Amino acid sequence: MTTHPAEPVHDLAHLGHHAILTPTIEETLAYFVDLLGMQVVAVEGDAHYLRAFGDYEAWSLKIIASDRAGLGFVSWRMTSPQALERRVAWLEQNGHGGSWVEPDHGIGPAYEFADPDGHLFRLYYDTTRYEAPDGERPVIPTNFQKYASRGANVRHVDHVNLLARDVRACREFWEQGFGLRTYEIIRLPDDTEAGAWMSSSIQGHELIYTQEKTSGSGRLHHFAYLVDTREEVLRAAEIFADARIYIEAGPSRHTAIQGFYLYTREPGGNRIEVANGGYLVFAPDAEPYVWSAEEWAKKPGWGAPIPPEFHVYGTPVVVD
Amino acid sequence: MTTHPAEPVHDLAHLGHHAILTPTIEETLAYFVDLLGMQVVAVEGDAHYLRAFGDYEAWSLKIIASDRAGLGFVSWRMTSPQALERRVAWLEQNGHGGSWVEPDHGIGPAYEFADPDGHLFRLYYDTTRYEAPDGERPVIPTNFQKYASRGANVRHVDHVNLLARDVRACREFWEQGFGLRTYEIIRLPDDTEAGAWMSSSIQGHELIYTQEKTSGSGRLHHFAYLVDTREEVLRAAEIFADARIYIEAGPSRHTAIQGFYLYTREPGGNRIEVANGGYLVFAPDAEPYVWSAEEWAKKPGWGAPIPPEFHVYGTPVVVD
Amino acid sequence: MTTHPAEPVHDLAHLGHHAILTPTIEETLAYFVDLLGMQVVAVEGDAHYLRAFGDYEAWSLKIIASDRAGLGFVSWRMTSPQALERRVAWLEQNGHGGSWVEPDHGIGPAYEFADPDGHLFRLYYDTTRYEAPDGERPVIPTNFQKYASRGANVRHVDHVNLLARDVRACREFWEQGFGLRTYEIIRLPDDTEAGAWMSSSIQGHELIYTQEKTSGSGRLHHFAYLVDTREEVLRAAEIFADARIYIEAGPSRHTAIQGFYLYTREPGGNRIEVANGGYLVFAPDAEPYVWSAEEWAKKPGWGAPIPPEFHVYGTPVVVD
Amino acid sequence: MTTHPAEPVHDLAHLGHHAILTPTIEETLAYFVDLLGMQVVAVEGDAHYLRAFGDYEAWSLKIIASDRAGLGFVSWRMTSPQALERRVAWLEQNGHGGSWVEPDHGIGPAYEFADPDGHLFRLYYDTTRYEAPDGERPVIPTNFQKYASRGANVRHVDHVNLLARDVRACREFWEQGFGLRTYEIIRLPDDTEAGAWMSSSIQGHELIYTQEKTSGSGRLHHFAYLVDTREEVLRAAEIFADARIYIEAGPSRHTAIQGFYLYTREPGGNRIEVANGGYLVFAPDAEPYVWSAEEWAKKPGWGAPIPPEFHVYGTPVVVD
Repeated sequence: MTTHPAEPVHDLAHLGHHAILTPTIEETLAYFVDLLGMQVVAVEGDAHYLRAFGDYEAWSLKIIASDRAGLGFVSWRMTSPQALERRVAWLEQNGHGGSWVEPDHGIGPAYEFADPDGHLFRLYYDTTRYEAPDGERPVIPTNFQKYASRGANVRHVDHVNLLARDVRACREFWEQGFGLRTYEIIRLPDDTEAGAWMSSSIQGHELIYTQEKTSGSGRLHHFAYLVDTREEVLRAAEIFADARIYIEAGPSRHTAIQGFYLYTREPGGNRIEVANGGYLVFAPDAEPYVWSAEEWAKKPGWGAPIPPEFHVYGTPVVVD
Repeated sequence: MTTHPAEPVHDLAHLGHHAILTPTIEETLAYFVDLLGMQVVAVEGDAHYLRAFGDYEAWSLKIIASDRAGLGFVSWRMTSPQALERRVAWLEQNGHGGSWVEPDHGIGPAYEFADPDGHLFRLYYDTTRYEAPDGERPVIPTNFQKYASRGANVRHVDHVNLLARDVRACREFWEQGFGLRTYEIIRLPDDTEAGAWMSSSIQGHELIYTQEKTSGSGRLHHFAYLVDTREEVLRAAEIFADARIYIEAGPSRHTAIQGFYLYTREPGGNRIEVANGGYLVFAPDAEPYVWSAEEWAKKPGWGAPIPPEFHVYGTPVVVD
Repeated sequence: MTTHPAEPVHDLAHLGHHAILTPTIEETLAYFVDLLGMQVVAVEGDAHYLRAFGDYEAWSLKIIASDRAGLGFVSWRMTSPQALERRVAWLEQNGHGGSWVEPDHGIGPAYEFADPDGHLFRLYYDTTRYEAPDGERPVIPTNFQKYASRGANVRHVDHVNLLARDVRACREFWEQGFGLRTYEIIRLPDDTEAGAWMSSSIQGHELIYTQEKTSGSGRLHHFAYLVDTREEVLRAAEIFADARIYIEAGPSRHTAIQGFYLYTREPGGNRIEVANGGYLVFAPDAEPYVWSAEEWAKKPGWGAPIPPEFHVYGTPVVVD
Repeated sequence: MTTHPAEPVHDLAHLGHHAILTPTIEETLAYFVDLLGMQVVAVEGDAHYLRAFGDYEAWSLKIIASDRAGLGFVSWRMTSPQALERRVAWLEQNGHGGSWVEPDHGIGPAYEFADPDGHLFRLYYDTTRYEAPDGERPVIPTNFQKYASRGANVRHVDHVNLLARDVRACREFWEQGFGLRTYEIIRLPDDTEAGAWMSSSIQGHELIYTQEKTSGSGRLHHFAYLVDTREEVLRAAEIFADARIYIEAGPSRHTAIQGFYLYTREPGGNRIEVANGGYLVFAPDAEPYVWSAEEWAKKPGWGAPIPPEFHVYGTPVVVD
């Protein structure tokens, strides 16, 4: 009888709701509402809760007034209550134990813990589905809310990119503990890693780690929001330009995952991508593509040059 | 020495500002502002003056509260003051004389007259350029106003389609009097015409006449507004559908001129198209393509079927 | 302790390679190669093996010369060898046992069996990855083959639609036996079902059953091939029209799953869709949306009318 | 009585057929046929005559085998025979006289002369319309040829950019002698001009002059070919990248005229753009926008950085 390798774990369903910190709460809200096309659905103390029109859950972004920009937390919805129990058990048995957080405006309870670089994550299963009020009901009942038709008109979050001092350690943490699949890796000559693109699904990336080049830790590189077409990424550039929002890079296409991108910074300083595309991975046994530094430097394919600051800037800002 | 045919006249520069009547002024304004993405720039008595973000003139649409829907007037800007004088002289010498109208909110004076079906037209040269106020200034100085990024986000008017009891007479009126070029004609077996697509420029259509099938006259079939891409026509369908606006036809592509279309009716009843594309005609000596009824019925190429009401409905509504 | 419902099964990875029959092998090959942009990679007896440029496996479509059009088989690649064993065991234990098929031009062995309507399916895990020869190597190593840039330029198969006398029975077969998720159902007043849209992943549809309205069984409604954008669906319409290929419906958007479609028939008679889009389902606990006949008839949202033949025609052709 | 300024001249109808030189005739032909999607319609001696599917004339590009790359000639079709006579008279009366050239494969006779930088131009009126042979006939009779559906699938030439030692002199030559309209100018602090964008129609650019920075003269910067959408510019990048064609810049958007661009070099070394968009100018009295060097350097709006070689490289190549 043949011995097969262990089968993959499918406990993470998708990226859930997230939190960011901003020192400019009013301007940041204006960016997300007027320019990205999101909507404030609740305010509680220092926190504003927002949603995009394609979110099936009641909210997806918590913006917290703070003295500086940065990441609050990233969360994953689990595929089942059992999946949540299994992953919490793994965390606790492997020295990554955290603590339970009460339901946050209808989502949770959640188990909060830190990845090897110190970014906070939450795992949850219980959630609240969005019920569109009058005036927001979509005409097609399989949509969750009517089309926003405002600003860049983002549909929902697409992926998150975190900076890590040890990309490999973070990658292995998610692979071994959660069954995340890694689709691309950049490996440097000293065998450290400059980047890793990971996903819980056929999408090419949900969670990215790239190299932290400052003395900081737990920093956010960017959140990416999905628009429906590359044409809408181009439209978004027009909107940001006319709003005098700084465009750091794009619109153009990345070599990794081949997604079409546009990077701005919301007024508080957090980098936000408007994104479309990137390949899907159907093969259940796909191995990550490992780029050598030499091959990566050649940047095969097409796409504009990325400015150097893209590889250094993150939030909170660190000036070494 | 060779005798050449007379050279073409270039006195009409482009479609200018237009007026429509509506019995539902508030709902009609909401349609143009929230769904098309236009802007009210002035109110005078019963009239609201609107502009689209791509208009170089101060305004382009006058919406007049009335007891019924219909056309106010269509206007052409002339290529020069001399061109205006020449065309007024031609009208007066050929039995189509009208009268001068005082400047209308900064545009004009204009000479107003009727086409053979009784639609009012205005010719003018003097105009007011739009000066974007703070908050509306585009980042690129070759634009006139910042990108609207709201609703269907129309750039400017594209063409107008009028119903005519005698399409041929209207076509010949514009060809002979104004040098408009005709790019397509539908000719029926009895030698009458079912449609004519005309233009003052390389664009495939600016002024269309199609057959009036009711006892009415001077009726409007539709005004078309340009969006930048076919993708934006598809987006517009999403927006209108979620706003519960009746979609009469499209998104699809017309056989004539090959423009990509989407037809709705503004709440007052006037038919409005969101349009993109249609061919350009570069040949200075292009002859109109004359469709026979048989060939036209075959509808070569691709495109969804057009509902029968499309060929009958116009404003004001006529019920025979 | 809480009792949770059973967790979902993840044994089907994705639609694999498929076979169709055609009575016009040369013309059918020309359609797939010149108009869809696919490539013949091998010929064995009556069978031609084709691939699309986005396939990671060596081939994905087997076209078999036959006396009539119709389905050969549909296949699924499994997530693991264990998954293959489990599903074969389920089939054999539940009265749906079939038989093993030798590797087919490098893919397999496969277990072949019939769904409740008599369509042949194959399950397999072992496969051959495509190794692009010189002249076909993509510049980006994460692609499998260079961009085809020919005809409609399809990337890979997107979904398959089969006709079934008992849609509900087929749906329950895949749900209960394989853990396929159903995202939409049309339920008729007599509680039978007119359609079911199912998937093994976050994609809104991979396997569709719609009602068989003739005396036939085991019939194919259509295979859909993916292009990268809605714009490419529009381009495809231009290509098919100029090639004088009959366009049955589209380009337009479906109400179910909201995919953008274009239906033609390859010269042998099998219906082929060029498709883009359709929503993704992220919620691990999403319930299928059940359309009543009344609600379905209203066709909310936008999209062109579908011709009646669309609901009857399939291959092999049945004339009752 | 009011004295009006002189009216504009409308003697140039559109860019016509052009000639380029190449030292690598076979590779250059493969680039234009396989990658751009054009077609060879005739061969005469050292010259291949090509057309794009959207050309109404029989051919539009003459590729001449030579010992080096560079411009053969640019041509304009005139609006009438009288216009041709008038412009030849102007040339001869103003010291720019040239000579008549026999019809070139069905187009002409043409009057050939040089602009102030020494680029050869031809003016002509007589032409041969393309008659599509069997297998190339479009399904819609208002098209000229069926859709190419191959490679970047260019529709027709869009504009040409020439390098000039004295941009201002070239601009004034075309304005004063031919009534070309200038839509944008870059003016340097020493009052010389770095660029001028000119057109005979509402299109933002047909003829561009930018500054010659080498000791060369009469050099070609690029010819631009139109594709129907920005999406097709992105597709073209994929095609060129996979064909290992050097991409010098783009896909991105220019500040001047706001066209979406992609620059490659055909194997012989001539720079070719695949282009879409750019604004239309409707105002008959639009003044050129004059950029100061300071304002231009800020590059308002969005768009990727242009590499320095873009401003120096031209054909024939000059190494100072």
